[in-house]
Amino acid sequence: MKLRALLLLLPLTAAVQAQQPSQPPAVRSPEVSADRRVTFRMRAPNAAKVTVFCECLTSEPAMTKDADGVWSVTVGPLEPDIYEYHFTVDGVDNLDQRNPVVKYNSRPNLIESVLEVPGPAPLFYDVKSVPHGKVEIRYYPSKTTGTTRRAFVYTPPNYERGTNRLPVLYLLHGADGDETVWTQFGRANLILDNLIAERKAAPMVVVMPFAYAYPWHAGVAGEKQRADFEKDLLTDLIPFVQSNYRVNTDRDNRALAGLSMGGGLTLAIGPRHLDMFSRLAVFSSGGGQNPEKTFADVAANAKNVNGQLKLFWIGVGTEDGAMAGSKRMSEFLTASGIKHIFKTTPGAHTWIVWRKYLNEVAPQIFPATS
Amino acid sequence: MKLRALLLLLPLTAAVQAQQPSQPPAVRSPEVSADRRVTFRMRAPNAAKVTVFCECLTSEPAMTKDADGVWSVTVGPLEPDIYEYHFTVDGVDNLDQRNPVVKYNSRPNLIESVLEVPGPAPLFYDVKSVPHGKVEIRYYPSKTTGTTRRAFVYTPPNYERGTNRLPVLYLLHGADGDETVWTQFGRANLILDNLIAERKAAPMVVVMPFAYAYPWHAGVAGEKQRADFEKDLLTDLIPFVQSNYRVNTDRDNRALAGLSMGGGLTLAIGPRHLDMFSRLAVFSSGGGQNPEKTFADVAANAKNVNGQLKLFWIGVGTEDGAMAGSKRMSEFLTASGIKHIFKTTPGAHTWIVWRKYLNEVAPQIFPATS
Repeated sequence: MKLRALLLLLPLTAAVQAQQPSQPPAVRSPEVSADRRVTFRMRAPNAAKVTVFCECLTSEPAMTKDADGVWSVTVGPLEPDIYEYHFTVDGVDNLDQRNPVVKYNSRPNLIESVLEVPGPAPLFYDVKSVPHGKVEIRYYPSKTTGTTRRAFVYTPPNYERGTNRLPVLYLLHGADGDETVWTQFGRANLILDNLIAERKAAPMVVVMPFAYAYPWHAGVAGEKQRADFEKDLLTDLIPFVQSNYRVNTDRDNRALAGLSMGGGLTLAIGPRHLDMFSRLAVFSSGGGQNPEKTFADVAANAKNVNGQLKLFWIGVGTEDGAMAGSKRMSEFLTASGIKHIFKTTPGAHTWIVWRKYLNEVAPQIFPATS
Repeated sequence: MKLRALLLLLPLTAAVQAQQPSQPPAVRSPEVSADRRVTFRMRAPNAAKVTVFCECLTSEPAMTKDADGVWSVTVGPLEPDIYEYHFTVDGVDNLDQRNPVVKYNSRPNLIESVLEVPGPAPLFYDVKSVPHGKVEIRYYPSKTTGTTRRAFVYTPPNYERGTNRLPVLYLLHGADGDETVWTQFGRANLILDNLIAERKAAPMVVVMPFAYAYPWHAGVAGEKQRADFEKDLLTDLIPFVQSNYRVNTDRDNRALAGLSMGGGLTLAIGPRHLDMFSRLAVFSSGGGQNPEKTFADVAANAKNVNGQLKLFWIGVGTEDGAMAGSKRMSEFLTASGIKHIFKTTPGAHTWIVWRKYLNEVAPQIFPATS
């Protein structure tokens, strides 16, 4: 990284500065070949052992060192998708230093390098030649937390020029995520752009808040985190959105969805606020070890829940550790007479699944009206 | 990072999930004490040597290992500011694995951990209790590059509710940056929010594009990068902004500024497009080794330049490697009879300086009208 600083300091012409690479191009990583094999490389001349951990792999292969101290391994062919990975160098995790694309997280030690294996044509989460909406980085005042909070808000193509009010989906991240992740890694905006262009989903506003009331380093206990997030959502964020966006304000046009921890929040908040939400989607999240107790009030209210919810969708990957809990939750809902969709798909506890779930469920939440 | 995956898979209740830390809280880094001393820590039991490189320091101190294999060093007290740093473990650079805050870059090997040392009260780049504008993540079609490109666009508080047209500043990043960095690390939006609240700067739109025509991995040569970026800016982005934002479209209300490579672009583009820009600001960037030759056309047009430019501001830190080139450029402009402000300040080639420069120059670019 020091070479960068030196290069930037040189009094180069603007043209030369523009082309100046920051590092000698010796080590390229990850390198994706036309047949979708991937070579990972890492320069670590003094290391005794380097391995790669990738959600594209079922093992953690050791890399081998060449005469220049560059470790490498080739894997695949891989399915076109977006994968997280990192290297472990003598027991210490490290990003791929040759790859500028990282997945950010709101807590320590969870930043991962990103491997994108492109498809033969743009995939459902890729930029296509369609009208594009935008994502707004908004600040809103929270009476609940006493702070100014940030939310990412997707508005569909030509939002500024329209006049009709739109439905709105509140979309929550999982543990360790933040308000940026559904856009920057989940590509919610591009998924919606593509669904809307194909007339599969209605134009909608998607609000992606920070699904913790307080940052991790504040050390606030979980129940207060959850309760204050719920209060912020219901009494600070939703009113802010309704004051600042052209959205419908009735429950029929308001949905709540989330992944993992955000799915848990959706389960905890949604069925208890039928006056607020008409459509719920839960990705890769159960209702805890004892839903009979935790959700006794919801079960007792089954008739209302069925009458009010137009969609109650629960999805989980068959290789996901949350599979058992999700299945238990679905069985509890069935036993309680609460209508819902329980869908299992191939996949683990990963964004590979969550991007697909958003693509599948957004058209069910707010279908395109022809 | 594997512990994270395991924890997420456990079928916890939503409440427990919300509070579940991702890692045992054993190692805290960076730890900022009340007296603004900072302790860096890194767990690397097998390493022989670990050092820290921080722009807050003038040396690269070695860290010492405790019985648990955790390396640490305490430095400071430090001035309140935002600093970049990383660790070097047996010759391999690594982020601080306990710190979730990173500075992103568009090229490899340049991602850095971020240390924020807070002031006794919110600083000029902090969130204050003032009205907040927003930043829009926009996609626009570029005929120049044949691709869909992304720009970040700041709009001031209450932009949606206003009716008068606003001035617009095009603000460029440096080498290895991208369209996110002025917002995510430079805090341009918060700096503007605060300046507007204090009635120092006029409400303005700030457009922050990707200042390369093509991504680094495309391997496009520097002159084509520069020329195509200029064409994209002038013939794709500016028309897009004028079609999609409530901005004035005359040259009096259009400014161009940038840092380092973006300052070089400002120097190369601005004085040659007086029909487009009336105010220029150049941060930490010279005009190359032979401005007499490179800018001969601009010197020959000195009278027009003086007549048309309402601000031509060049700033550079006295410890910046770009100091000599900036000084040479200023001397050349003076010799050519071109009026400009040449300002030197303490500081090096760093965002510490560029945040301050934006704070200083934005009110000069578009002053608040009382």
